[in-house]
Order: sequence, then C-alpha cells, then structure tokens
Amino acid sequence: MMTGAEYIESLRSLKTEVYFMGKRVESVVDHPAMRPHINSAAVTYDVATNPETAHLGSAVSHLSGRTINRWTHIPQNQDDLVKKAMMLRVAGQITGTCFQRCVGMDGFITTYSTTYEMDQKYGTDYHERFKRFLIATQDKDFMTDGAMTDPKGDRSKSPSQQHDPDLFVRVVEQRPDGIVIRGAKLHQTGAINSHQILVMPGQGLQPHEKEYAVICAVPAAAPGVVFVFGRQVNDSRKWEGEIDQGNATYGTVGGEAMIIFEDVFVPHERVFMNGETEFAAMLVDRFASYHRQNYGACKSGNLDVLVGATAALADIHGVAKAGHVRDKLTEMAHLVETMYSGALACSFNCTHLGCGTAFVDQTLANVSKFNTARYYPEVTRLAQDIAGGFIATLPSEKELENPRVAKYIHKYYQTRPDVPALDRIRLGRLVENMTGATPIIECMHGAGSPQAQKVVLQRQIDWLKRIKLARRIAGVANAEAPK
Amino acid sequence: MMTGAEYIESLRSLKTEVYFMGKRVESVVDHPAMRPHINSAAVTYDVATNPETAHLGSAVSHLSGRTINRWTHIPQNQDDLVKKAMMLRVAGQITGTCFQRCVGMDGFITTYSTTYEMDQKYGTDYHERFKRFLIATQDKDFMTDGAMTDPKGDRSKSPSQQHDPDLFVRVVEQRPDGIVIRGAKLHQTGAINSHQILVMPGQGLQPHEKEYAVICAVPAAAPGVVFVFGRQVNDSRKWEGEIDQGNATYGTVGGEAMIIFEDVFVPHERVFMNGETEFAAMLVDRFASYHRQNYGACKSGNLDVLVGATAALADIHGVAKAGHVRDKLTEMAHLVETMYSGALACSFNCTHLGCGTAFVDQTLANVSKFNTARYYPEVTRLAQDIAGGFIATLPSEKELENPRVAKYIHKYYQTRPDVPALDRIRLGRLVENMTGATPIIECMHGAGSPQAQKVVLQRQIDWLKRIKLARRIAGVANAEAPK
Amino acid sequence: MMTGAEYIESLRSLKTEVYFMGKRVESVVDHPAMRPHINSAAVTYDVATNPETAHLGSAVSHLSGRTINRWTHIPQNQDDLVKKAMMLRVAGQITGTCFQRCVGMDGFITTYSTTYEMDQKYGTDYHERFKRFLIATQDKDFMTDGAMTDPKGDRSKSPSQQHDPDLFVRVVEQRPDGIVIRGAKLHQTGAINSHQILVMPGQGLQPHEKEYAVICAVPAAAPGVVFVFGRQVNDSRKWEGEIDQGNATYGTVGGEAMIIFEDVFVPHERVFMNGETEFAAMLVDRFASYHRQNYGACKSGNLDVLVGATAALADIHGVAKAGHVRDKLTEMAHLVETMYSGALACSFNCTHLGCGTAFVDQTLANVSKFNTARYYPEVTRLAQDIAGGFIATLPSEKELENPRVAKYIHKYYQTRPDVPALDRIRLGRLVENMTGATPIIECMHGAGSPQAQKVVLQRQIDWLKRIKLARRIAGVANAEAPK
Amino acid sequence: MMTGAEYIESLRSLKTEVYFMGKRVESVVDHPAMRPHINSAAVTYDVATNPETAHLGSAVSHLSGRTINRWTHIPQNQDDLVKKAMMLRVAGQITGTCFQRCVGMDGFITTYSTTYEMDQKYGTDYHERFKRFLIATQDKDFMTDGAMTDPKGDRSKSPSQQHDPDLFVRVVEQRPDGIVIRGAKLHQTGAINSHQILVMPGQGLQPHEKEYAVICAVPAAAPGVVFVFGRQVNDSRKWEGEIDQGNATYGTVGGEAMIIFEDVFVPHERVFMNGETEFAAMLVDRFASYHRQNYGACKSGNLDVLVGATAALADIHGVAKAGHVRDKLTEMAHLVETMYSGALACSFNCTHLGCGTAFVDQTLANVSKFNTARYYPEVTRLAQDIAGGFIATLPSEKELENPRVAKYIHKYYQTRPDVPALDRIRLGRLVENMTGATPIIECMHGAGSPQAQKVVLQRQIDWLKRIKLARRIAGVANAEAPK
Repeated sequence: MMTGAEYIESLRSLKTEVYFMGKRVESVVDHPAMRPHINSAAVTYDVATNPETAHLGSAVSHLSGRTINRWTHIPQNQDDLVKKAMMLRVAGQITGTCFQRCVGMDGFITTYSTTYEMDQKYGTDYHERFKRFLIATQDKDFMTDGAMTDPKGDRSKSPSQQHDPDLFVRVVEQRPDGIVIRGAKLHQTGAINSHQILVMPGQGLQPHEKEYAVICAVPAAAPGVVFVFGRQVNDSRKWEGEIDQGNATYGTVGGEAMIIFEDVFVPHERVFMNGETEFAAMLVDRFASYHRQNYGACKSGNLDVLVGATAALADIHGVAKAGHVRDKLTEMAHLVETMYSGALACSFNCTHLGCGTAFVDQTLANVSKFNTARYYPEVTRLAQDIAGGFIATLPSEKELENPRVAKYIHKYYQTRPDVPALDRIRLGRLVENMTGATPIIECMHGAGSPQAQKVVLQRQIDWLKRIKLARRIAGVANAEAPK
Repeated sequence: MMTGAEYIESLRSLKTEVYFMGKRVESVVDHPAMRPHINSAAVTYDVATNPETAHLGSAVSHLSGRTINRWTHIPQNQDDLVKKAMMLRVAGQITGTCFQRCVGMDGFITTYSTTYEMDQKYGTDYHERFKRFLIATQDKDFMTDGAMTDPKGDRSKSPSQQHDPDLFVRVVEQRPDGIVIRGAKLHQTGAINSHQILVMPGQGLQPHEKEYAVICAVPAAAPGVVFVFGRQVNDSRKWEGEIDQGNATYGTVGGEAMIIFEDVFVPHERVFMNGETEFAAMLVDRFASYHRQNYGACKSGNLDVLVGATAALADIHGVAKAGHVRDKLTEMAHLVETMYSGALACSFNCTHLGCGTAFVDQTLANVSKFNTARYYPEVTRLAQDIAGGFIATLPSEKELENPRVAKYIHKYYQTRPDVPALDRIRLGRLVENMTGATPIIECMHGAGSPQAQKVVLQRQIDWLKRIKLARRIAGVANAEAPK
Repeated sequence: MMTGAEYIESLRSLKTEVYFMGKRVESVVDHPAMRPHINSAAVTYDVATNPETAHLGSAVSHLSGRTINRWTHIPQNQDDLVKKAMMLRVAGQITGTCFQRCVGMDGFITTYSTTYEMDQKYGTDYHERFKRFLIATQDKDFMTDGAMTDPKGDRSKSPSQQHDPDLFVRVVEQRPDGIVIRGAKLHQTGAINSHQILVMPGQGLQPHEKEYAVICAVPAAAPGVVFVFGRQVNDSRKWEGEIDQGNATYGTVGGEAMIIFEDVFVPHERVFMNGETEFAAMLVDRFASYHRQNYGACKSGNLDVLVGATAALADIHGVAKAGHVRDKLTEMAHLVETMYSGALACSFNCTHLGCGTAFVDQTLANVSKFNTARYYPEVTRLAQDIAGGFIATLPSEKELENPRVAKYIHKYYQTRPDVPALDRIRLGRLVENMTGATPIIECMHGAGSPQAQKVVLQRQIDWLKRIKLARRIAGVANAEAPK
Repeated sequence: MMTGAEYIESLRSLKTEVYFMGKRVESVVDHPAMRPHINSAAVTYDVATNPETAHLGSAVSHLSGRTINRWTHIPQNQDDLVKKAMMLRVAGQITGTCFQRCVGMDGFITTYSTTYEMDQKYGTDYHERFKRFLIATQDKDFMTDGAMTDPKGDRSKSPSQQHDPDLFVRVVEQRPDGIVIRGAKLHQTGAINSHQILVMPGQGLQPHEKEYAVICAVPAAAPGVVFVFGRQVNDSRKWEGEIDQGNATYGTVGGEAMIIFEDVFVPHERVFMNGETEFAAMLVDRFASYHRQNYGACKSGNLDVLVGATAALADIHGVAKAGHVRDKLTEMAHLVETMYSGALACSFNCTHLGCGTAFVDQTLANVSKFNTARYYPEVTRLAQDIAGGFIATLPSEKELENPRVAKYIHKYYQTRPDVPALDRIRLGRLVENMTGATPIIECMHGAGSPQAQKVVLQRQIDWLKRIKLARRIAGVANAEAPK
C-alpha cells in the first residue's frame, strides 16, 4: 500500500494530457487548481496506512490474501460493507470534501460480479481477466477513475438514436488484439489524478446497441486520452491566496474532468465486456446501489465538519445559547445522522451475489441516497442561517496586507475580546466553501435574518384574541380568561 | 335578509327527503347530527345582520339596489372581492369550522358571467333568466347548494366513456316546458340545509357530450331529489353528549351529502345552460378560481381558533415560555397568515369580466389554495405536537358522571391549581375536533414527543469534536480551542 | 407460549375493574370497543407460534433456556435486536395498527439492566427479584403493560413541586412486607387487556424525590387498580356496525386507558426500585431508546398497509398510471423505508450493557423515532391526497340496507365495471381509519384537489416569456428562440 | 431624472476611496468586479425613464410636484405601494440579480416618518431638514446607500456593552456646526456606486446609548469615508472572461462593501436624529417592514429568470415533457408566485402613518419575507435538480479557444442538432450564477440524480404485496384480487 505522500509522488511520473483554462497542464501535482483535490485523494491512502484508521481503511484481499487498501477491495461480507461506510465517514471528517476514490472502488465491485455473471451465461473469461487486473491494481494500489457518465445528448433518446453516435462511448473497431473506443465521459471526479480509468456503460442498452456495451480499463496516460478539467466555484481563489479558499488543503468537492477518448486502443486483457448489452443495466443498477450506499457516509462526514464550523461561529457570535440556534444545530445533526443511518442500514442488511460478493440492500441504498440529496441542501441552508450574512460579503484576504484597511478588518470583524477576527473569518470562509451560494445567503439575510421575522411575528400576532375565540367555541365557562 | 334564527326556522317548512344512518330524517333542524352544521350556516345570516359585521356580511345588490346578504352578491369591484375574503375569515373565527354557504355564492358568481357569455355568442337568454332567479334568491335570502362534483366513475375516462352514463348528471329528456335530469352529486356541503340546489357541470366537456352540459336550479324539496347524509369523524358523539364533540355548537367541517336526482323535472326558467358544451370548462375554471380564493380566508379564520386553543393549552400545561413552543406557535401563525395573504393578493389583484363582474387573479387564487391545502395539515400537526398526547386518549365525558372515577378525572387532568381540569379537557376536545387523526397523535407522542428526541440528540452529539474538525480544516491557529 | 386464541381466553378469568363511557365493563373480551384491540394484541401471540413467523416472534430465554415469546425476551445480541425490529414490521403488516405489547417488552428490557446497575452500586437484590419475576412472566406468557407516563401536572415543575403530590405515582407507605403506591398513569396502551402492570418512573428525579422512585409489578386485577378506557376517534362505530370501522378486526391505534392506583399494596418480591432516585433518568433514557427503536419498524408495517390501500384505490379510480400519483406513491414508500432504515440502523449498530443486554445505538434510535413522527403525518397526507375526498363523506353502511337508497350507493360509488363499489368503500374506510382527519381532507380536496391547482398553474404561467428573459441575460445569440 | 447611462457617467466624477483585493480602485465604473453591479443599478434609472416601464418606475413627488424616480419617492397611498412591488418585479426580471437601490429608498421612507414623529414629540426640526435633503436627492436623482447594519460584535450584548464601543456607529463628538461619527457599516449593497450614504441605527437602543442614536446623510466621497469591496462567489471570472460569469452584464447579487467612518464630520443640516434613542426601534421596525415588502417582488422577478433558464434547459435536454420535470417547474413557479402574493398582500393591505405615508401591513410583510427566505433556496434546489450536474463541472470558456479541445466541447455538450452547445453552456452558466453551490449539486447529482433513485424505488417496492395486506384488513371479499 502507498501512503498519501507516495501516492502524490507517483502522479509525477504519469504523462497525462490535461487541459485547464485553455492551457496544457504540465504537472497536475503542482497546479494550484488541482493540488487540493490531490491532497484529498491522498487521504484515502493515509486512512489505509495510518495506524489509527487502518482497521477501516485496509482489508485483506480475498484474491491474494494480501493486505490492501479497502478502496480496492471487493466486500465479502456484512463487516466489509459496514466498514466501507465507516471508513467513508472518517475520511469525510478529515477532508471536509470529496476524496474521489469511491467511484473506482464501486466500479471494481460491480465489474467483479457482472463479469462473473456474463461468464456464467456465455462461457466467456471476463471474470478471470478482471481478477488479474484487479490483483495488479490492489498490489500497485492504483487510484482508478470509474468512468460511467456519457454526454448523453438528448435524454429522450437512446444511444443509437442520437444525432451523433459518439454521444455515448462506443467501440468503433474490433481488432484481433483488442478494441478501439471513441467518445467522452463527463463529470469524472478525480480523473486527472487517477492512474487508470475503468470505462463502463452508463445505462441500459437495447440488443442492437452492442457497440455501446463495453467495459475496459485504460491507463490514464494512454495515447488519445485527453482530460479537460472543469471549472469550480471560486476556483480562482486557489491561485490567488489561501484564506479565501476556506479549505485550502483539500479544496471543494471533487475536481471533475471531461475525458475524451480519441479512438483509443485497448488490448483484450483489459476488456471486460464487449457487446453483452443485456448486462449493461445490471452493471449500472448494481454500481448505483454501491455508490448510493456511500453518500450517507461520506457526506455525513463532510457535514460533521460543517456542523462544527457552524457551532463554532454560533459560539463566536454569542448566540450559541439561543433556543432557535440550538434547535437548528440539533436539526442539522439530526439530518446528518439520518443520512448515516441510511448508509448503515443498507450495509448491514446485505445479501450475497452469485460470486460471493456482499451486496447492499438495494431499496435501502436508494432510499439513503435520496435522503442525502434531499437533506444536504437543507443542512447547508441551516448553516447559512446560523452563520449569518457575513459569509457572503467578507473582504479579500489581500486586505489583511493592505495597510490602509487591515486594522479595520481586524477591528470590525472581531466579536469577542478572546477570539481573533481571523478565526472568525477562516471559519466563515469554510462555511462559504461548503455551502456556496451567495445568492441564497443574500436572500436569506437581506432585510433581516429569518429569525428576525419570526420575532416580529410573535410580537404582532394577537394571541389573546385567538385564545378567546377558542375558549368560546370550546365552551369553557369563562371565555375571557387568563394568559 | 334573514337572521340566523329565521334561517333555521325557515328550514322547518322544507319537506326534503333526507336519509342518514339508514333512516329517513324527519327534521334536519332537530337531528343532532345535522343541527351543529345548521348553526354554523346560520352564522352567515348573523354576520350579515349583526351590526358589528354587517359592513362585511352585507352588500347592495347591483341588480335590485337592495341590501342583501353578501353570500348572494355578485362582486362588482375590488372592494367586493376583498370584503368577501375578510367576511370569510371573520365567519371562520366565529364557527371554527365550515359554514357551507360559499359554494352556492361562487356558483352564482360564475353562472352569472358564464350565462352572459353564452348569450353573447348564441343570442340565448340564459343571462336574463339567471338574473331573475338571482334577484329572487337575494330577496328571499336563500341558502343554495352549488352542486358540481359528480361521482365521476373511472377518472381516466370522460363522461360519455363511463360504463354507466349516469356517473355524471345529465339531461335525459328535453320537454317543451323544461328538462329532466338524472344522476348524482357527491360531497355536497350544506346540501341538507339548503333551500335550493344550483346544478352545474363539474368538468370540461367534448362537443358530443351535450346532455352533460346543464346548469339549472332545483328546489331542495323537489320530487325525485334524495339526500343521503354522509358520516363524519366522531359523528356519533353528537347524539351521545356535548363535551366530547369539541365544538358542540358548530360541529366539524361541513356536513356533506350525496344528492340523487331521480329523473327530476326542471322548468325552462330555471335552466341556465342546456347543451353548450364549450362553456362547461369556462364555468368550472372560473368557479374554481372564486372558490379557491375563499380557502385562504375561511381556513385562516378556522385556524385562528386552533392557534388560540393550542396557545391556551401551552399555557395551561406550563410550557408557553419554552423556546420550541413559542417557535411552533409562531410558525402556526405564520402559515395562517400566509394563507390569508394569498386570499388577499388574488382579491386585490383583480380584473373585470365582460359582464362587469370583478374576477380574482386566477394564478394567485390557485397558488393560494395550493398553499392552504399544503399548510393546513402542517398547522394541525404543530397543534398536535404542542397540545400533547392527551387529546387522543381522553376519557368520555360520561365519566364525569361516574361516581367511581369522576373525582380522579378532575384530579389527574388538572395541571395548575388555578385552572379546572374541565377547561383543559374542553380545549383538548376542540383540538381533537379540528385536527382529528388519533393515529397521527399516537405516532407523534408515543415513545416521547418529538422534542424529547431533539433533547436527547442535543445531548448525545459530540459538538466539541465537530468544532475541532472544522477548526483544523479552516486553518485556525489553535484547532483545539474553546467552547 | 400461548396462541392468540388462548391469550384471549385467558383474559376472561381476569377480574379487572374497567370503566368506559361511564359504565363498568363486565368483560373486556366481549366489549365491542375493546375486542378489536384485543385481537390486535393476540397477533403478538400468533406471530410467536405461527410456524411462518416463529423465527421472528419467538426466542430462547437466556434465563431459562426455554422457547419464549420474543415480546418477553431480553435481547442478548445484535441478532435479537434486529429480529425485534423485523418482528414488529411483520406484526404491523398483519394488524395495520398498534398491537400494544411493546411497551411491556421494553419495560422488561430496561428494568433488567437498571436493576443490575442498582445492585452493582448498592448491593441490593432487585436484579434477582426481577429475574424471578421475568422468568415467571416468560413461562406464563403474560401480556404486560409498561406503565410510565404520569399525569405530570404543570410541565414546568418537578414531581415534588406540583400542587398535588399525586400527579406522579409515588410510594405513600413503606410496610414490612411491601409498599403502597398512589397516583395514576395515563395513555396506557393495551392496559385493559394486560395481565399485569409494570410501574416505572417517567422522568429523572431529584435526590429528595425518593417516594417517586419506584418500579414494581402489579397484577391487573389487584385491589385498588382502576382502569378508565379512553375514547378514540370513531369508537362508536365499533358497536354500530362493521364496514364503517375500516379495520373492524384490529381497530385503530392502541386502545389507551388511564390507570388509577388507589393506595395499592405491592409485596417486596415485586418491587424493583424503591427510592434510588438517581437511576430514574437512566431507566427512562434506556426505555426511551428501546421504545424509539420500535417505531420505525411497527409504523412501517402499518404504513405498508396504508400504501397498499392507497395504491389499490388509485387503481380502482383509474389514476394509477398518472405521473403525479406514481410519484406520490413512491414518495410514501420512500418515507416508509426511511423509517425502517432507522430502526434497522440503531439495531445493527448496537453495544452491550454491563449485564450483557444488547443496547441499541441511542443517537440513531432517537433520530429514527424523530423521523417516524415527522414522516408519519406526511405519509397519511399523501394517502389522503391520492385516495380523494370521498373518504371524508362516505355514507353509513346502514344505507346498504336502506331499500330507498342502497341501489344508488352501489351505482354511484362504482368506478369500474369490474370492481364492486363495496370494495372501494371498504378500502376508503380503511384509509379513513388510518389517517383520520376529516378536516384535513376537506381542506385538501375542497375547491379541487391539489393537483388540480398545479394543472391550472402550469397552464397559466407564461413559460415562454420566462425563457426569453433567461436567454437574454445568458447572452444567447437569439433570445427569441424556440421552445 | 437621469437615464442609466447618465447615472453611470455621474459616478466618474465621484472621488470615493474604494479598496478591493488589497488595492485602491481608481474608477469603480471601469473596474470589472464592479461594473456589472453598476449596470444593474443603472436599470433603476432606465425603468424610470423608459416609456414602457415609466408608469411603474417614476412617480410625482408629493413634496415638489415634479416627476421623480420612484426609488426616491415616499409612498402616499395604496397605489404607490403596489407600484413599488410591481416595479421591483420588473427590474428583477431585467437584471436577474439585485439592483441595490431599494435600501436607500426604504431608508428615505422610514426616515421621513420617523423624523415626523420625533418632531411631534420633541419639537425638533428633523423632518423639515430631511424634506429639504430629500427634495434635493429627488431632483438630482441620486443613488443612496441606506446604511444600517453595524458590525455588532457579540450578539448577546447591546452596543454599549461591547468590548469595543465602535462596533456600532456612534457620535464621537458634538460640534456647534455638526457631529463627528465613527464606526463601520457592513454588507452595504450598492455602496461603492452610490452618491451618498444615509446612516441609520440598526437596532433598538437603551436610554443611555444616546451616542448610537444617529441618522445622518454623508456624501460618498466625504473625507474619512473608506469603502472595502467584499469578495463574491466567482468574482474572479469577471476579469477572466465573459461566458463563465453567467450574467456578465448585471453580475451576481448586489456587490457589498464595508464602509468605514474614520471620524467623519456631518453638518447639522444632514443630521436627522441625534440622541433620540427611543425612536431607533421604531425606525428599524418600519424600515424592516418596507424592506421586507420588497423581497417577495424583486426576488420573484429574479426567479422568473431562473425558471426560464431551467425550462429552457429542460427543453434543450429533451426532458421538458417528463412528468416530474413539469411538476418541478410548476412547483418553482408556484413558489415564486407565493413570494409575489406576499409582496402584493402587504402592499394592498396598507394603512397610513401620522405624516400621511402609506405603510405596509407589518404582519404580512414579515410573513412575506420569511416565505421568500424559506422558498428561495428551494427554488434554486429545484433548478439544480432539473438543470443537471453539468452546471457544476463545465469547462472554462477558455477551452473554446483551445484548438486541441474546442471541437470536443462543441461536440459533446450538444444535445440536439438544432441547438448549439454554446446556448446550453450559457444557460448552464446562468443557472450556476443564480444558484451557486457546487457542493450541493455534487451531492444531488452524484451517484445519479434524485429521480433516478425514485425510479429504482418504484421498481423495487412490492406494490402487490402491500395491496393484498390492505385488502385483507379492509375485509374485501377477495384479498388476492387484481391490479
């Protein structure tokens, strides 16, 4: 197994073709837009090798018997699935953001069982091929991008109905020694810092769409593989400074790229599906279940950080004891634990597939992801509500070096004599980093925070009149009575 | 105009054919299942004649120039529409329940403009006929059931496609002197205590469905008109006692009936549409807009009573000052005012139809009703949350006359020395009356009220750990720092 | 172990003092208000003895080694906790309502560990006493009411501060052979059909409140134990007929009673806490966690029935394929599985207490109950939305024997030629039984169902105008472009 | 009245001291970070002078009788208040973002009535002074920053209790010819492009806090007035390019600045409160009500743009006809109209203050703002749900000039042959601009969009089993029956 530092070093020798902001990136490791994401991915290596977390982050390969990083492991039992969830929460607490390696992990798990079932039906040898590939990956401890999402074109049409047949990755040539693929995959988290790419179909296919039924592994630096790194919210702050980033070490979300396959050749030993259209839906279905298992875990880890930042700010602002603040903080924690409950429930309540792999409860995994997607925005909304409007209007960190105004920043952003303004500013930037959305904050806190309206309402409503109405109708003897 | 007492008396002479619980009802006025609803309808007469509310409840007829009950008035301007909304909130505050007369009012308003437009197109004289009918209704101050909802059968089929053609009211015979109608109308609020019925189509029609395009007025006691009064939640309590009803004077909701038309003859002067299918959708659309205008007003009036009962109980229970209780009460009031805002907005923002009638803003009327339907359950849920589990398990009022246990009821249901247990029980029964749903209360308060779980959570969560996670990622100098 | 039938028979010999509607109840088994609840409790006996469910419903006592009903079992490991949850969902699916026996079960589990800890600290022998009591209970397969909730008086005051010291159950006399208790317990689910009562304190106590720190077991027929059975929604329908009940076999919710203790003597061998105030909070805290574990399981079972009834009605009404109906049904199922996920997660994620008992994850158990209380009303709201307004206005079943109108009920409540109206009415009554709340339904469906407003809105909004606004601001070349 | 172009030109001569990113800004008009906000503010001038909107954007001054910009007008009646709301919606539709001038407008309105009441009580001449100031402002058509929000320090302490007395703006010297103020105002929307600043207290004050009770007007370029322009989400994109901004013309939100008052002298004729502490709460309360009136109007205008962008993307993606997409778009529009209803309702339902100014309904204004803050995030969430994950991962516009990848951007981001990829990218960037929050999008769409989970759930749930459970309990003859 590699450590995080070794992983980062290993990327230096990868000669990938990466573009960002219109230019070729010479070294992803040294590019300020990419380094934080790489640091975050490196945490998956540290969690496996750090003695405090190795019981979660590492596993014994059922194929080789060797100790491996759990992000390359095929879960064999309930314990493996539960540890997968627990590991993700811990990693999420360390990084406060996405660490990108799960899509590869779930690609492995799913390809493993899908190749098994294809072989059962067709007598192919995809499963053995894949095992060899997987053992090598486990031993080299490679970070792998699980590449599933195609451009998709018109969503009301299937792959073969699109105006451009390349809108889904497809095999454009069958050769004696391998295949040639063309197309693109979008939104590829962690792609620019992966050693290899596991290409998979992204949706069910019809029998005549054989060219789209392809699973294969491609080295990240293979000829014809081109990465275009996407823009993220506030990405320019990464090369402008540090404090304004909010999470300068690990970044924001995952660092997504578009991957273009310009007629890339893949030798047979790295091809794990080639035309078996009826297995595409099974692959996607299973992949989705394993991947949805994760969200209740990694996001609850991330949101633990947000809960902490919000609680810290409430304290710094002097409102930590206000009833509505306590209630909202508890609501945040409640929603976070609801997410985690879902991840645990679908993990514990597992079954086994034909090849022996432990499989999450599909219904509960989908329920869990749906709740995570539903409550994540709500938790961020509550954080913004408590943290206050200042997170949307903070001055640049450059002003701290501006002799004309620096003293005023320190003076006017301080709330308590025992807490430096900079603590508050840094925590505010972290909340901004994790919740984004200046427009939402402006609408929320402009003209007074929501609680201000509630306070006015409470004062404006004629409660006594309403009590009298009720007492009269209820037949209480003295409708005029107290309160 | 009649007073409420005169209205009630006027019903005695009506020889309607009403059934309830399998038996013919001799006198609706004296039947305990019906009397509370009649008392509630009577409030619409009192609101018009009581000097304190007459500025809202009465209007000057634009047809006769005479002062009439606003529930029979055609709104001529913004002021009329706004007063309609204000009147409904007041009536809702008095009764705490439905007063049933709005569906007739909105039937008048809509038929008025629809007949106008039919005449414009076809040169018919429906509008003049209707005006004569309306002036008579205004002068006699009749309560009128606006009958729109058909049984409808299979909802995926239109009237003419049903397995039984009678599933929508239709004309089965055209006679020289009138028409004969057959079918039924369901869910007719206030029907058994109305003087007459205004039959209208309930949905858009296709050109070949002429027999279903019929508007006509039928006396409630006309031969062949049969009422079957439906069951309501806890209706038996009406003839078993008083306290357990919660709102013994005005009842619960509206008192709905099924009306069966057994080939009922209607003379031409009371027929206001007869085959003009393309106007059915217009009628329904306009009716819906006027009727949806109401809900934000009458329900906010009803819920003012519920807010009052809940606030009174919070006080009696000693929790009125708890932060979460104040917050929930304010949330209840906020939702109530949101409903009322909608009713006001669509009323103020009116336009005029071709015949001069003031017309609510359709978009805003629909928005308002949608919010009312969405938040009404939420307000009741909050009431149940605050009022507590006792409203679902209260002993019968008969126990208060049971010498073995009466003293214990008084002893153990008392919370404060200065408030008799009976006050609390009556208010609890009112909350039960307005929110129903024993199953919901059981689920809410069983195993501890929701707030109990929040309190445990607040205690269980390791806040300091989360704060440290955040401080470390934010780059705060001392991640171990305070709180 | 007893079967359900044997359990019911066993109640005949119990000479309990029960009052309902002001009168003494001679035989709870034969009283129509009580029999459905007894049938529901009997299901806990059948689940244990029926071969199809015995793997969930029975367990091997760790005390006696004999096979016992799981409702009397102390969970020894993760598997026991998970089976507890699974058993509750199954029982909930069979009854569609509360089966009442869980409060006793959780009382056993909690008293077991609390007595252990008291003995550890004080060298008392409560734990051995309780074991003997529990073995006897297991062997006799007794239904036990876990009695925790006191009247509580003013919620802002502790037991000793109340104006009446009896507002919490307390020991009024210490005798050589036992103790004498006085007070009442409210909301006691299943109490009138239990063989015995396990009295427990309901909240934390201060050191000087020793008289309130009492756990003891009392036979249901002990002298001075008086039950007052509370009213439930629509309880009169139980003695008026069958169909209108909705769930004539198993009833609605749990059947709650007030239990009055008129200076009841309890011998020492049935006393399991007597003055150890500092253990009251521990008891309540643990009890709450075990009991909150249940709700995600039993309520998801109950709601499976409601989902089924709603889906059946959607089909009968011809709307099962409508997009919004499918979406709402799926949302209902999603919320149900969210509840169940919580019950599973807190069960799987267990620890062990000092005495060896398996203990649910407290945080997750509280999270789960909170979600169950939050989403239960939402699921019922969706059911009411889909089922439609007819469930609030259905005629009495007596009309089916009323020759004047019976034919019309059958005619006008039928929607499809292949489904009798009675099927629809019965399912409608079941939805009414499980969701209550006529007022909510009236507000929801009056003036048109919520979907009707959405449809109007969709038509009223000028989408093209909004698209043009956006295209202009986005800088799209041709702002006038298509749609 | 000035036109937008004249307004922009007028700013050139203002010699304000503005800092941004650590440097002095020579010309706010030419600074790429500020120009879009200035363009947006200029719209308030165009709306008043453009013939199509002048009926909303202009008014006749009740002081001078001259036609003025409504953003400087004191509302005299219901029509003025309603037109204020209508004007804001229109301006919001044009800009898609904040146009900043309302805080000054509401400052005028509130200071007008507050000075009147101070004079009534104390015989001061603040009101006359203010009238003179206001007429000059109306005639010069000045943009004015209404400066209310102080740094506030510890929120649990009042101004005089803070560790630093300058945490609220205060008078540090009373001179014969005027006063000297010190402190800062934060979050000042539109401040750097205003001609003058109206300083007001931001909360209620105690009698001994006289130094904090100050209202005065300060020229933006007065000595000692220092502006620090805050950072916004993605602000660097403003100087890096155009497309990636999303709304290059008008920017994002308002452009907030911190204003520092370094012992600034204000002559008496521009001082409108000086020590009258008991009027601070009245001022804030009234200001809040007028300002809260606005949010339901301007934000509904902004969100009309977002609804349009989302609808356009749904169409471009080929999902505009999907049931759930239509439902979500309608829900968005519903929430937008709910906001607007609130703004209208509190405007129409007005009263008059002692000085004749028309005053919004305070309760409804607060209700409206609370709903706006509550639903704005929900509308953005729905937009992100429909628009899809691509808005968080789009490549930089620089790639369109990168010969290696530009063709692939066009190829793979195109969905339909008739819509260029660039249209889609521009609309996607606009949605990003208005909703922010990459982290939320990642959580929402990662592992499949929410709808994907619903689809799986719908397939996984055993509906027939649930139907059978319900039919059995309902007593339907054949529980096995169809579906």
